[in-house]
Amino acid sequence: MSNQNVKWHDHLVQREKRAKQKEQKPCLIWFTGLSGAGKSTVANALDILLLELNKHTYLLDGDNVRYGLNRDLGFSDADRIENIRRIGEMGKLFVDAGLIVLSAFISPFRSDRQMVRNLFLAGEFIEVHISTSLDVCEQRDPKGLYKKARSGQIKNFTGIDSVYEKPVDPEIVIDTGELSIQDAAQKIYDYLCDHAYI
Amino acid sequence: MSNQNVKWHDHLVQREKRAKQKEQKPCLIWFTGLSGAGKSTVANALDILLLELNKHTYLLDGDNVRYGLNRDLGFSDADRIENIRRIGEMGKLFVDAGLIVLSAFISPFRSDRQMVRNLFLAGEFIEVHISTSLDVCEQRDPKGLYKKARSGQIKNFTGIDSVYEKPVDPEIVIDTGELSIQDAAQKIYDYLCDHAYI
Repeated sequence: MSNQNVKWHDHLVQREKRAKQKEQKPCLIWFTGLSGAGKSTVANALDILLLELNKHTYLLDGDNVRYGLNRDLGFSDADRIENIRRIGEMGKLFVDAGLIVLSAFISPFRSDRQMVRNLFLAGEFIEVHISTSLDVCEQRDPKGLYKKARSGQIKNFTGIDSVYEKPVDPEIVIDTGELSIQDAAQKIYDYLCDHAYI
Repeated sequence: MSNQNVKWHDHLVQREKRAKQKEQKPCLIWFTGLSGAGKSTVANALDILLLELNKHTYLLDGDNVRYGLNRDLGFSDADRIENIRRIGEMGKLFVDAGLIVLSAFISPFRSDRQMVRNLFLAGEFIEVHISTSLDVCEQRDPKGLYKKARSGQIKNFTGIDSVYEKPVDPEIVIDTGELSIQDAAQKIYDYLCDHAYI
């Protein structure tokens, strides 16, 4: 084997050991949906549930990514694509590290989500569509953003004057207008059990 | 408490639990030094050693970062700075996830390394200067890069026609011209034990 092959082989062995050590099948659980749909809330509830069961997880969301790694990015189309690309690449490294990674971003465009899915092996990427309706999201309006978008203070707001492209064939669909946060987290947890991730 | 405070409190609790679960004090071990100095080799040896002892680690190096997250970056001064910034921010998230992170990049400029150190709390950032001399590195020339730099085929090569700024007060200094790879890994391992990281 060449040096490069030896290195790659070593890397695969280490990767397998890290996953085995953690007694889980690493994956990226990708939450997508409108602002206010409940992505972060459900992802947080699932994160806490998994940690209580001694699983090794990490949650990527606006709070720890937008103001750190991606703080050089704005809201132009090019920057939005780059935002999702970096989150996908980072998710890939976390999965490589053996973790179950949860990411909660609107990620409105199908092509961007597909780009991220393509970074992963089959089964490593789990798309969770938080399908809560625009009406419900707008009624909740937890950050007052819909109000600002309706009045024109914010431009290009997903669901108002920018499109949200629904996933065609997501692994899981959850409407938090119908399901409680705990039940939503439980539904994803059951999926992970049924498919032998944990 | 406001919603934001509750969230931050929850995050700190989760962070602490993740570290406790892994029975280690998360940190970023930052290897810096010339090309061919042995950064990646020592980091890999330490990574394998720590995993054998059931520690939870991850190694960031050119192989998994340059062609993924940072593949949009070139070798201009601005891109080099951005390269190190992103690695630092990513390292911060991995430390937040509870891992002992090893990073192996030339990172020739003091100000860039200081920028990364500033992202971390005291004790979370461990600078390891792989101080192997230019002569030894150039004799090894594992990728034939020094030869190309000397002949002018590569420009701005660290140590030849671009400066390497030695760390002023690194936590650890290792010269792989004097110490074997195993002894070098052991020296860092001892430091981690002595300072209660593991």
